[in-house]
Amino acid sequence: MKVIETVAEMKQARKKLRGTLGFVPTMGYLHEGHLTLVQQALAENKFAAASIFVNPTQFGPKEDFKKYPRDPERDLAMLKGVGTHLIFMPTVEEMYPEGSNSWVDVASVTERLEGAHRPGHFRGVATVVAKLFNIVEPTRSYFGQKDAQQLLVIKKMVADLNMNTEVVAAATVREPDGLAMSSRNTYLNAKERQAAIVLWRALSLSREMYLKGERNADKLRQAMTRLISQEPLAAIDYVSVANTETLQEFSQIEGPALVSMAVRIGNTRLIDNIILGS
Amino acid sequence: MKVIETVAEMKQARKKLRGTLGFVPTMGYLHEGHLTLVQQALAENKFAAASIFVNPTQFGPKEDFKKYPRDPERDLAMLKGVGTHLIFMPTVEEMYPEGSNSWVDVASVTERLEGAHRPGHFRGVATVVAKLFNIVEPTRSYFGQKDAQQLLVIKKMVADLNMNTEVVAAATVREPDGLAMSSRNTYLNAKERQAAIVLWRALSLSREMYLKGERNADKLRQAMTRLISQEPLAAIDYVSVANTETLQEFSQIEGPALVSMAVRIGNTRLIDNIILGS
Repeated sequence: MKVIETVAEMKQARKKLRGTLGFVPTMGYLHEGHLTLVQQALAENKFAAASIFVNPTQFGPKEDFKKYPRDPERDLAMLKGVGTHLIFMPTVEEMYPEGSNSWVDVASVTERLEGAHRPGHFRGVATVVAKLFNIVEPTRSYFGQKDAQQLLVIKKMVADLNMNTEVVAAATVREPDGLAMSSRNTYLNAKERQAAIVLWRALSLSREMYLKGERNADKLRQAMTRLISQEPLAAIDYVSVANTETLQEFSQIEGPALVSMAVRIGNTRLIDNIILGS
Repeated sequence: MKVIETVAEMKQARKKLRGTLGFVPTMGYLHEGHLTLVQQALAENKFAAASIFVNPTQFGPKEDFKKYPRDPERDLAMLKGVGTHLIFMPTVEEMYPEGSNSWVDVASVTERLEGAHRPGHFRGVATVVAKLFNIVEPTRSYFGQKDAQQLLVIKKMVADLNMNTEVVAAATVREPDGLAMSSRNTYLNAKERQAAIVLWRALSLSREMYLKGERNADKLRQAMTRLISQEPLAAIDYVSVANTETLQEFSQIEGPALVSMAVRIGNTRLIDNIILGS
């Protein structure tokens, strides 16, 4: 396994690889969800690369950039364990040298949900992913379904800007009780960890209602909202039942629906989603 | 020479080329300036490609997108004449399918000069050039110094987003009387064509003053403005003496200066520039 810290060296290392490359961009503090992505990248390509970079431009000024959990040594050991060939682990200065000021904006689908609650977030995501794609030149790139809107934004960017990588989505990996794996779960204390199950319970409730034939999206949103509100440690940012492509809220569900939510458990903001009718 | 109209075919054709590729993006209606770029691309690379695409997203709503001059048959003959290997000539629908809505924004250097007078212009330029770079994957890309700010924007985009092409600048090609070659010169009637020399005369005046030791940028701007104002058919959009990197206006010239202007001759908006002290 080769660990690379500069753009120039990463480009050079890429050029030396003859064959397909699967790429998993991460912000580090890895969990099983990330490793599943790397394993899929390894299964579908000759080589696998991952990046570890906590990207400052996708955090708002009041968000958790500084305290975002970091443990590069553990990350590297985990990536080595699954057989990753290349790790790109640049500094902030390497990715954003002084005066750097070009941005990728994916319009429309970024206006809702996470985009509405985190202004500038997806501009930061799209920009850093575009940069990483140019540096790593992956044949295929792997993203978790947990960040559903991010996945949609990146697919849209790749299509609209004619980028040369295939975006592959992988199912959300969950703890045994249903909590979606996330580096931010580490912020939760024991009580909050228990309370955090409410996201999965709400999503499961919407699935049950849907399977019983409910197509009124308001009824789904209301039922989920009621359930979450019963958890004293939980505060809802949004609960959404939307078109999977446009992210427009459904009144009546027609076609596949993205059921998604952002919920604060104490000071920790968690997101999760499922797709109904896919 | 191969003429290609779809993104998929262009990507395929590119993959088949083994060796360096020089690329000249154009909006067609070619003149000697364009051909000089292609010739340089041919001299410095194994293969040369050009694109012909009048890009709607870089025109303002009141600008000349619809009436921009087009003559693809003549263009193709000219490109064939100099030995171009590949021509990419997509439709607007091929480049911007319905729902396409991702954009590249180069901030800061786009706020001044052309950017200030043509809101959204450089967003359109950066976006289409990013798309073309992803489709054509050129080793080197050739741009004329005549569009000085465009050149700066593209260099900045390539650096900031870690794109994999080398941006090469080529000197402005001029008519015998000094008028910079431009597809828009075709709009000029005989009187206007005569009046249009005033841009080059003003630039030449600034060079003379500079060579005589004048470093007060206001004096240069005033002298050029006075000279242009004596031409009844000319109306100034801007006359600028700015830092070549930041495009900030100089009061005292320190280091290389971009002397640039946009002047309307009748209904035709012309731009031109020279660099002093490079």
